[in-house]
Parts: sequence; C-alpha cells; structure tokens
Amino acid sequence: VASDPGARIAAGCGKSLVDLLRLRQGLPGCVPDAVLHPRHRRDLEGILACCARHGIAMTARGGASSVTQGLACPGPGVALDLRTHMDRILAFNAACQTVTVQPGRYGPALERALERAPELFGAAHRYTCGHFPQSFQFSTVGGWAATRGAGQNSTYFGKIEDLVLAQEMVTPAGVLRTGAFPAAATGPDTDQLLLGSEGAFGVLSELTLRVFRRTAEPRRFSYLLPDWAAALGAAREILQDQAGQPSLFRLSDPEETGLLLATHRLDHPLAAALLNRLGLRPGSRCLLLGSTEGEPGFARNLARRIGRICRRAGALPAGGLPVRAWERGRFLDPYLRDDLLDLGIRVDTLECAAGWDALARVRRAVRAHCAARPRTLCLTHLSHGYAQGASLYFTFVTAPEAEAEPGPDPAAGTRAFQAGILELLVAQGATLSHHHGIGRMAAPFMEAHLGPVQMDLFRAIKHQLDPQNLMNPGGTLGLDRP
Amino acid sequence: VASDPGARIAAGCGKSLVDLLRLRQGLPGCVPDAVLHPRHRRDLEGILACCARHGIAMTARGGASSVTQGLACPGPGVALDLRTHMDRILAFNAACQTVTVQPGRYGPALERALERAPELFGAAHRYTCGHFPQSFQFSTVGGWAATRGAGQNSTYFGKIEDLVLAQEMVTPAGVLRTGAFPAAATGPDTDQLLLGSEGAFGVLSELTLRVFRRTAEPRRFSYLLPDWAAALGAAREILQDQAGQPSLFRLSDPEETGLLLATHRLDHPLAAALLNRLGLRPGSRCLLLGSTEGEPGFARNLARRIGRICRRAGALPAGGLPVRAWERGRFLDPYLRDDLLDLGIRVDTLECAAGWDALARVRRAVRAHCAARPRTLCLTHLSHGYAQGASLYFTFVTAPEAEAEPGPDPAAGTRAFQAGILELLVAQGATLSHHHGIGRMAAPFMEAHLGPVQMDLFRAIKHQLDPQNLMNPGGTLGLDRP
Repeated sequence: VASDPGARIAAGCGKSLVDLLRLRQGLPGCVPDAVLHPRHRRDLEGILACCARHGIAMTARGGASSVTQGLACPGPGVALDLRTHMDRILAFNAACQTVTVQPGRYGPALERALERAPELFGAAHRYTCGHFPQSFQFSTVGGWAATRGAGQNSTYFGKIEDLVLAQEMVTPAGVLRTGAFPAAATGPDTDQLLLGSEGAFGVLSELTLRVFRRTAEPRRFSYLLPDWAAALGAAREILQDQAGQPSLFRLSDPEETGLLLATHRLDHPLAAALLNRLGLRPGSRCLLLGSTEGEPGFARNLARRIGRICRRAGALPAGGLPVRAWERGRFLDPYLRDDLLDLGIRVDTLECAAGWDALARVRRAVRAHCAARPRTLCLTHLSHGYAQGASLYFTFVTAPEAEAEPGPDPAAGTRAFQAGILELLVAQGATLSHHHGIGRMAAPFMEAHLGPVQMDLFRAIKHQLDPQNLMNPGGTLGLDRP
Repeated sequence: VASDPGARIAAGCGKSLVDLLRLRQGLPGCVPDAVLHPRHRRDLEGILACCARHGIAMTARGGASSVTQGLACPGPGVALDLRTHMDRILAFNAACQTVTVQPGRYGPALERALERAPELFGAAHRYTCGHFPQSFQFSTVGGWAATRGAGQNSTYFGKIEDLVLAQEMVTPAGVLRTGAFPAAATGPDTDQLLLGSEGAFGVLSELTLRVFRRTAEPRRFSYLLPDWAAALGAAREILQDQAGQPSLFRLSDPEETGLLLATHRLDHPLAAALLNRLGLRPGSRCLLLGSTEGEPGFARNLARRIGRICRRAGALPAGGLPVRAWERGRFLDPYLRDDLLDLGIRVDTLECAAGWDALARVRRAVRAHCAARPRTLCLTHLSHGYAQGASLYFTFVTAPEAEAEPGPDPAAGTRAFQAGILELLVAQGATLSHHHGIGRMAAPFMEAHLGPVQMDLFRAIKHQLDPQNLMNPGGTLGLDRP
C-alpha cells in the first residue's frame, strides 16, 4: 500500500491532453486515497471483499496511457496498480499458440518473451503477440483488453478483441473465468462482454492471448496516390480483394502526407518537381504506407496485388524507405507531445471507425468543425482496415495563441472542442471510438450513440457484477444515468 | 394466425433425433397453442406487447432444423413463424459489402440474391454469403444467428458471429439495434451477446451480414494421411502457417475415411492394394478434403503450401475428385437420416470444439464411451479449423436391435447416450457445442460448463431484456435454475 502524495497524484491521471494541461497548471484534481499493489488473484479477491464491506471505490490501472480520461479518479477510493507484481507470464501453449499472462505486463516485456519462446518455453518457433499500439512501450495487456485497443498492425493480426481467447476477472459477484476455446456455440460470448468494459465490471487477473509465429521480415511498400477519393477507392479495393490483409496499412490525407514528407525529409525539391509532373500535387496527393507479413508466398502475392490496385488508381510506388522512416518514430510521437506542450503547442487526437460509404463524409465534417477553431491544424489518416470500412484517426495541432488564457479549468477549451467532434461523429454515423476507448471523455455521448435499450443492458450487466457500483465508478462507459 | 393441429404440431419440433423418434411414435408432445405469422417489426412489437399483457410465452422459429431440441415447445404459448413474411432483403450496400436481411430468409434464397447482385442491386460484382451449413436448404438467417452456427466453409469465411455486423432485435424491454460498424471500442460488444441467445432475449427482426465477392472456382484438394496423429499434426501446421486459411477443411478419422471411400466408390481393389503398399492402410489412413478460395494467387499459393505440409506428413495427394464427390452429397445427408430411420437405423450427431492439445484426447474419450454401447458406430471428423484448435464432429450410427423396445419415452436411450457424451465433453475440456447450439439437449450442462458467475450473468441479461420470462422459456441456454 502506498499513500504518499506522489504515488497518489500519479495514480490519478492518464495521458489525455486534459490530464497534461491540468498537471502543468499544478492542478492534480481528484486523487485516490491510496495505491494498492496486489500480488495475485487472491489479493484481488481480498481487496474486493474488503472494499465491498466498507463501500470503497476501486480503479484498476495498468500503464495509464489512456488518452480519453479513462483513469480520471472518480472520487474517494483506492487505485490498484497491476504492474508491480501482476506482470508474469503464467503459461505458454505451443500446440494451441496461446500465452496466458497477468494484466500488468507491459507490451515490450510480453513481446520479448514470445520472441524468446524457444529459450524460455522450449518452443519450436519464435512468436509475436501482433499487437503494437502507438502506446506499446507504455501500455499493459490488461489495458489493451479493458479499452478494446488496436495495434498498428491490426489489419492483419486483428484488434485485441480478436486476440483475447480467455479471461479471468475478479468481480464483486465472484471470479469470472472464460474457457480458452477456439470458438463456441454456447450462448453469449462473455469475453466480448468483458472486453472494453474499462474497469467497470471487475479487475482482470489473467488473459489468454492468441499468438503468431514470427515469419520473415515484413515486405514494406508505399504509394503516392493522386487524391483522397482515389486513395479511399484503392484502399477499399485492397481490403475487399480477398488476397489476405496487409499488416501495416496507413493512408494519410493530403495534409498529413505533406507533414510526413517534410518531417521524414522525403520532399526533396527534385522529387517535388517530378511528383508535380506526375499529377501528384501537394495539397492533393496521399501517402499510403504498408507492409505484408505471414508465410512468404502469401506476403509476396498480397504485396503484388496491392501494387496492381494502387497503380490502377494512378499511384506512384515509393518503395519501402518511407515505411522504415515512419517505423523509426512509430512509438516516439507520445514523447514529442510533451515537448510541444512546453512550447504551448497542443496536440490532441481522436479516432473513430465507419463504413466505406461514410469515411469521406466523416472526414469532411471533422475538418469543417476544425476550420471554425482558430489556428488549428487537422491531420487525418485511415488505418486499421476491414472489408466493411476502416478507422479514421484525427490529429489536431493547435498553435499557442489559439486559446484564451486558462480560467479555473485550463482544459475547458480542449474539452469543448473534443465534445464538438464527438457529437459530430455520432451524427455522421461513425463510432465514438475504434480503439482508444470511451473514458470520461466520450462517456456522455454513449447514450446518444448506442440508444437507451443497449445502455440499460450494460447497466444491468454492471449491476449484476458490481451491485454496489465500486468498480471504476463515476460515469465509466456512460453507465451513470444522464 | 394459424391454430389447426397440423400447423401446431409442425411448430412444436425441430430435427433432432429425439424429435424424429417421438413423432414416429405418434407422440407430438407439447405443441404451441397457435402459430403467428408476423409481417414486419411493428407486428413483432405488437405481438410482444400483447403477450406481455397476458403473460403468453413466445418461441420464434425459422427453418426449424435444430438438432439440439432448440425448438421444443416450452409449454402453453405461441410460436412465431418468421419465414412466411419476414424473409425479405432490406438493403444491399456494395461499398461496405453488406446485406441487410430479415431473419426468416432461407439460405439458398439469400445466396441467389447475392449471386445476382449486378442484376438486382446494380453492383459491380457477384457476391456470396460464405455460410453453408449442412442444413443450408432448411435453415434461415435468423436461425444461423440465434444458434451461433457455422457453415462448412467457415475456416475461410468465419462462423456466423464473424459474419453478422449488426442486428435489430425486438425484446420485451424495447427494440435493440446495434450499429453496422467494422469495429468499435465502445464497451461490450452487444452483437456477440445476442448471437447464440437461442430466442431467449427477443425476436430478431433484421440482420446485417458481411458478404464476399465471388472469386474464381475453389481449388479442391484431398490427401490420404497415414494415421490420425499425423493427420492432426498436418492440420495444425496448415492452420498455423499464416498462408491464409483454406475454405473447406474436413479431416476424417480412419472409421469415417473407410465409409467415405466406400460410399463414394473410391475403394477400388487396385487402389486399395497400392495404398497398402504406401503405408496408407485401412483402419489407420485418414482422408483430408479441402479447398482454397479467394483471389486466385492467394488460393494457389495456399493450396501449394497445404500440399507441401501434407506430403511432409507422409500423405498421398488424391486430387479434387473426392471433394467433388463429397460436395454432391453435402446438403443431402439430412434426407438420408429419415430413410435410415425407416429401417430402424438411428443416426445422430454431436459436435464440439477444443484446443489442438485436447483433440486427440476428446476423440478417444467419446469413442470409449461409444464402445460401451451395443452395435453403435462412431465416425469422427475435424472441421472448422483455427490456429488455436478445431471442431470435432461425431456421427453415431446405431443398428436396429441395439436399443430396448420403446417404453413411454421412445427417445430415452438416445437422451441418455447424448447426456453421457455431453458430460464427457465438459470433463475433457471441450465446448458443449461449436455450431449446433445448446437447445434443451445441452442446456442442463451449461452451469457445469461455464460456471455459476457466468450463468448468473446470462440470467441478469435475460431478466433485463425479458423480465417476465416469456421469450422461448423452459430452460433455454440452461437459464432456469437447476
């Protein structure tokens, strides 16, 4: 048990822009009364029983990299830090290609163990978890599951809900265990009900994940497409082609393309002149970065098909180098955000998913909303693709003088801006989130998004598993009545 | 509204062996008081409201091909036949590759429309639903979803829970609608909670399914493998190889292999001698039937990889003909069962899923249980494969004199035999079902299989959506307390 101010303050926030702005103003906000460090499931059971007796609220924490205020302290209560002791690998099953792990294990520690499977577990192959969110270095397996996260290679490997095979969750109603079956027809899928529950139902104590054999180096490719409409068309064609799915799949809109070419020094004047001649003009051209993985023949055939589809859409192949340049920074952008904030530049992100027929409309609406805000840049990319649609990821960069001096709430402007976008996503037929989760940021929009019958169903599940409302209370998932 | 005895009797049973035995003895058992034929969602809302007022139980029915007593009449109440009017295609979305359909539409009618997408919907491609259960001709889209069914090509296309993108269900608590998003991080996945609910939560009024472009003819292949252990090893290697998944994937054990070779006239004496010489002996050799689909380069590369893996396991390639022979009968076996019953021969099937490390053990245990029953043959095949495991499908053929003369319950012996197998599946770490669903047959084993915390959670969901317990009551999913 830790109850010093430093530990308590650190346990009261995540990594949302709202959190950062608040902390920089010396406003820690609400903090938990103590931070507990459970060692195993029995500790969790004891803590839950004790807290139930005394009516103490609990919030479980992993890497605390939430950008949606998912870890905002809900009021008096305790935080449970799962990283300290509950970070072990419990089992590795080579026959079934699964690993059973405690929720507090960080991504890189999991990946290292899987890579060393021959040495550690006597396996015949090396493995990968296939899950590489931008927060990879800062996030834990439990957090991936609690928020329905996605890795940057999810187009091939799947989102975390595709990767989790079984869970064990300690809830006030008892320990809930699901079976590690490849598939079943035994009623509702309980795993899919726990995934994304953002701590509101209980504390994860164990997860069994599918893992993948490491194959040869990915085949990297990039293409410059003439405009956003052509690029969307090509992306859809690739994902509906049934040649398999690419691994990395990241299509930047013209604004983001401009920034990427500039920051990765791909905008050499000679190249620029050539691109203009080919009709790939700045302000219009779009950069597609991608890779294929898997069995070499599969990866080669898929890369070839993607090339054919892109060229038919008027694309210029730009090789693997831009992908390597992007990869070097793929996990570093979170660091950059703090440095920019030192300069008064605010970087925030929001993301959603929608069907192919809605993506252009959703981006237009978000950009129109953004244009109304002074000195704010909106960069968009499509990633995490499916045959039915994709995720759109928006990065907002706001210059220092754009917002009024902070009043009592230094993040009031940010909050209002986020709320405007979220309202618009619902109105345009997109999801509130594809992989960041809901947190306190999007919670107020859940009822409008999912409707009262679905929300009341979530409330009934919550009431069954946590009748005293002690697990991450205070509006998680919008479960509190409006 | 129909209330004549014929309609009522037909609405009181499915296609389980227990149903067939009962009906042949002139014992219709419990039948509904009337059969209603709703025309649209508003009819369903009216029926549910009226039944709620009067406390009348309702059971929704599609093709009624359940082999798990899923449609056993639960007592007084009405049956809702969704096939009569609620069988329309409501929307086809070519951009998102989805079709929105009412639950009462039969498989072949859906598939025909998708194949004619250019003519009917002005689409640029022809499509397939990718879902071909053995009951294809007799089953409806709503039934597929309600039971978490799987088609014979699910290894490639996915089970119905992978194919359903959105649902609309009329429940006593209101109309529940999920959004047709490719993926989301907005709390529990409500679709995965409704799928497999076997009518206990409400009546489906609409489903949106992913569809697939029709590609070139599948590439068919078959291999004879020396024994079950080698065959399991090759199957696992194929499904973990990351070259993509085959479409049809059906591995017969030595008993089923013998029957298939004989019934499809593939046991020519010359061939038999040759096979023996190659070490592929009757009583040991196993037949793998399969196909690959998708983009031609993908399908070709995958077929080549499968060939390499099989040959490494000592297999003899047997070409595409055995697959074609099997395909001719793929939807006909259900007809055969009735003819055999005329001769007193009982054919019953049970299926499950398990991890690769449990499949051999599960088959051994089921066969041992079967050996204790006089004059009963047990045929097994593996199908519906995953990187983590597969489904095992058991066919039991019982000779006429094997069972005592019928007492008051002509299916008592069948019930007891099924119960023995189901108990054993739970004990051996397999699921109670991979795609047949639970029905009244497996319901009594759900509590032991999933545990009380999970079952109480299902009960809470049931109570929230159907507080008066009017939707397919009487033990569905094991929700009634033991």
